[in-house]
Amino acid sequence: MSNPNASAKPAKGAPQQASDGITPRARDYGQWYLDVVKRGDLAEHSSVRGCMVIKPHGYAIWERLQRELDDRFKATGHSNAYFPIFIPLSLLAKEEEHAAGFAKECAVVTHYRLKAVDGKVGVDPESKLEEPLIVRPTSETIIWNQYKNWIQSYRDLPILVNQWANVVRWEMRTRLFLRTAEFLWQEGHTAHATEAEAREEVSRMLEVYADVAENVMAVPVVRGHKTEGERFAGAVDTQCIEGMMQDGKALQMGTSHYLGQNFAKSADVKFLNKEGQLEYVHATSWGVSTRLIGALIMTHSDDNGLVLPPKLAPVQVVVIPIYKTAEEQAATTAEANAVADALKAKGIRVKVDDREGMQPGAKYYEWERKGVPVRIEVGPRDLEKGSLCLVRRFVIENEGEAEQELRKRKKQFVPRQEAIDGLPALLDTLQKELLERARKIREKKTRVIDTLEDFEKFFKEEGGGFAWVHWAGGRAEEEEMAKRYETSIRCIPFDDQIPEAARGAGTCILTGKPSERRVLMAKAY
Amino acid sequence: MSNPNASAKPAKGAPQQASDGITPRARDYGQWYLDVVKRGDLAEHSSVRGCMVIKPHGYAIWERLQRELDDRFKATGHSNAYFPIFIPLSLLAKEEEHAAGFAKECAVVTHYRLKAVDGKVGVDPESKLEEPLIVRPTSETIIWNQYKNWIQSYRDLPILVNQWANVVRWEMRTRLFLRTAEFLWQEGHTAHATEAEAREEVSRMLEVYADVAENVMAVPVVRGHKTEGERFAGAVDTQCIEGMMQDGKALQMGTSHYLGQNFAKSADVKFLNKEGQLEYVHATSWGVSTRLIGALIMTHSDDNGLVLPPKLAPVQVVVIPIYKTAEEQAATTAEANAVADALKAKGIRVKVDDREGMQPGAKYYEWERKGVPVRIEVGPRDLEKGSLCLVRRFVIENEGEAEQELRKRKKQFVPRQEAIDGLPALLDTLQKELLERARKIREKKTRVIDTLEDFEKFFKEEGGGFAWVHWAGGRAEEEEMAKRYETSIRCIPFDDQIPEAARGAGTCILTGKPSERRVLMAKAY
Repeated sequence: MSNPNASAKPAKGAPQQASDGITPRARDYGQWYLDVVKRGDLAEHSSVRGCMVIKPHGYAIWERLQRELDDRFKATGHSNAYFPIFIPLSLLAKEEEHAAGFAKECAVVTHYRLKAVDGKVGVDPESKLEEPLIVRPTSETIIWNQYKNWIQSYRDLPILVNQWANVVRWEMRTRLFLRTAEFLWQEGHTAHATEAEAREEVSRMLEVYADVAENVMAVPVVRGHKTEGERFAGAVDTQCIEGMMQDGKALQMGTSHYLGQNFAKSADVKFLNKEGQLEYVHATSWGVSTRLIGALIMTHSDDNGLVLPPKLAPVQVVVIPIYKTAEEQAATTAEANAVADALKAKGIRVKVDDREGMQPGAKYYEWERKGVPVRIEVGPRDLEKGSLCLVRRFVIENEGEAEQELRKRKKQFVPRQEAIDGLPALLDTLQKELLERARKIREKKTRVIDTLEDFEKFFKEEGGGFAWVHWAGGRAEEEEMAKRYETSIRCIPFDDQIPEAARGAGTCILTGKPSERRVLMAKAY
Repeated sequence: MSNPNASAKPAKGAPQQASDGITPRARDYGQWYLDVVKRGDLAEHSSVRGCMVIKPHGYAIWERLQRELDDRFKATGHSNAYFPIFIPLSLLAKEEEHAAGFAKECAVVTHYRLKAVDGKVGVDPESKLEEPLIVRPTSETIIWNQYKNWIQSYRDLPILVNQWANVVRWEMRTRLFLRTAEFLWQEGHTAHATEAEAREEVSRMLEVYADVAENVMAVPVVRGHKTEGERFAGAVDTQCIEGMMQDGKALQMGTSHYLGQNFAKSADVKFLNKEGQLEYVHATSWGVSTRLIGALIMTHSDDNGLVLPPKLAPVQVVVIPIYKTAEEQAATTAEANAVADALKAKGIRVKVDDREGMQPGAKYYEWERKGVPVRIEVGPRDLEKGSLCLVRRFVIENEGEAEQELRKRKKQFVPRQEAIDGLPALLDTLQKELLERARKIREKKTRVIDTLEDFEKFFKEEGGGFAWVHWAGGRAEEEEMAKRYETSIRCIPFDDQIPEAARGAGTCILTGKPSERRVLMAKAY
């Protein structure tokens, strides 16, 4: 085991003991999640209901995600801009369906001044605003109100703009990263001359999200359309990527919407086309948020804490000198720094942990909890032998493998130069293994299901997961399924997303009506 | 002149004609500023009172500034984090002086839901919050409330955290970038075991700001302390950097505060020191905002629009193919792309403007208004001669220089390879020239003044600028000066910031009392 100080090794299957303050998944998955967030120093609750504090380690992961996303946005021709956090109530109300969709979760600013009343600071009643302002839950309405000034003719199109911002949706039940009243996100808002161009943009950006999910976060996703009931308020089509968490639940990781001409109509944004006629502009919007960090945690982490894919790890390698005497300290610390410099020269993000007055074991613990992919221990014997001790944050368990074998694969003594030269490849390997492992977990928890009986058994007895089922119901039937099984249609997947065994026509699992193709059902976060 | 389509060349001194929609500075400096912002596509007003929209070109400049600042924050050991946008009223009110300082400009959230009333969407009166929430005007109170959980012993110190965020200060008179109800900024919040360490941090970060101002923005600054009356609400010491705009007014470009133990006391944040005693923690905070873009504009831009220092220019070089026939178009566009590729390989940010159906002159205009430092024109004759036409966005005017000479320096035909190889050096030169020019303007508008008579003459007849004066007054006297001359003490400069001619003791310009050293007085934005 990687954790040398663990007092008790949890029994396989149902560990009874928390490891380093982290509740085992098998005992309580929800508490495990909170423990990983807390012990990994990722985030914490604030004194404001539902608002979280993203701590430096959590924010550093978000910064890496931002960089990966932003580079792709720019490579596909987008620019960033910034629009006001406040939306006048009348503006939000313009697109009716949109307003109805967000009405129940709006933070409302009504006053603009405080004053001392009886020695206590309170709201100045005389500072009441003529019109209340909504703290943006999303920015379609305020942005389209500006686009009106930006667009006259087809020459002004397309507009390809993205915004990095905070948004507020008043949530009653919150959970760090997954569901908070305030969260950080990006929202792309584009304007196009034709429906075809806009729909192409929607697909392009969904694929950017899928690329980041799979090739950066190492989370495999299913791409598809949302049903009418799950669509973004005001959208004509909502596309999404859905990941599966270790517990078999789905998590919506990103959405890309074709908004048709709805927002152009409510904001009255027309353009002169090449034929000299006035037309309404076609819109898209697309977004991902700090929620992705929740997906990252629930896909890869284990009972020792956070596991990070190397591409997102703020620190990819930590080097820890081990010593007893002052002489050993000088020698191993010098070697740790030399190794770190050699790795930095290869573009690896590396940190030397030479904190004094702290046992090596406590350092191992801490960096494991923080998900650092590789640890290098440098002790006096390593110096003698000219080797380095490489410890991986995780290894994929082979079925039936002895504990000893596993440990051997996890912790290896490698000749110094070989270890340094091999590290970029090792990080690549770890990145690939995480995606591979996530794929296997998903496969194991995915079923092609044809009867309601099997469906019930899957979700109520077998732990659930992704169910490929035929469907011909409407919104009422979807609600019926939600009531009975707490499941929802995660998406109507694109053709190429449907596994071989799930293709072809059949009959709806609930109504028995004929169905052209299967949909993806699951419980969801 | 660089603008081939200009119909009338403005007379020197008092141009009567607006160039390409930009009001000349000599006619109306305030309107010129707004025109530069508008015609440079930097920002615009929104439908929310006092809130601006930062357009893609403006935001791209902000992104470059962010990168320069953030790299320096990280190099000095800081990490980014994120804290809630809302502050409970009772929390804001804890530090009395701080609360009093911001009370008059607080946006207050009082409700969290909308509902349809008589077919119209309105605020749901039943969703009133038990405690109002303030949209953060700055985050000391909410952050120190969290630090309480982070700090137990000296081992937890220092905490070196920065936040990139939006903040809201309800302003009655707003001006794009310079003063807006919502703005973007960074706020550093650090916690230290000793006063000495905290004060060292305050100085370190002020110097980071000065470095970015002078070596990235090319704006020379004076470093110093604020007087008691100008101090940040809740601070023990506020340090600042002050730049001079072309019109002689000062602009505060960044502040760094030693907060003493004030916030630690109001949030009750104590730590166990090495001697095992409980002590209050020492705090600093420091920030710069999108206001810096206003400083950038007012320091360097001219009657043709924005002028950008190369280090901050999102596009450093624009390459424009010139042609009449389709054959020429193919040849010059190919050459433009080849030149751009060669420049990109040198790390230069370059754009080829090959838009069709647009006259070259219109393109020149547009890129001048956007401040691009160098334009390269590629015409058929350049191809023949194997040369490139390099046009600088600006040249420093030498006194008495003939218009023709100036034009020659601005637009040069250079052999192709020489032009490409020389571009990094040319950009360096332009960067240096901007700083040099700004220094000269500042020198020209700076006076060492000993009598109130001269002071009045300087500000009421000679256009004003920076005045080095002896001062022994208090807050009341400062207000008196503000009332009479609209001036304020910009700072009590550090020793090394005072020019030779302004050193030594003297008598206060207003009270006649003895004074140890001069302060810097000016009108300010």
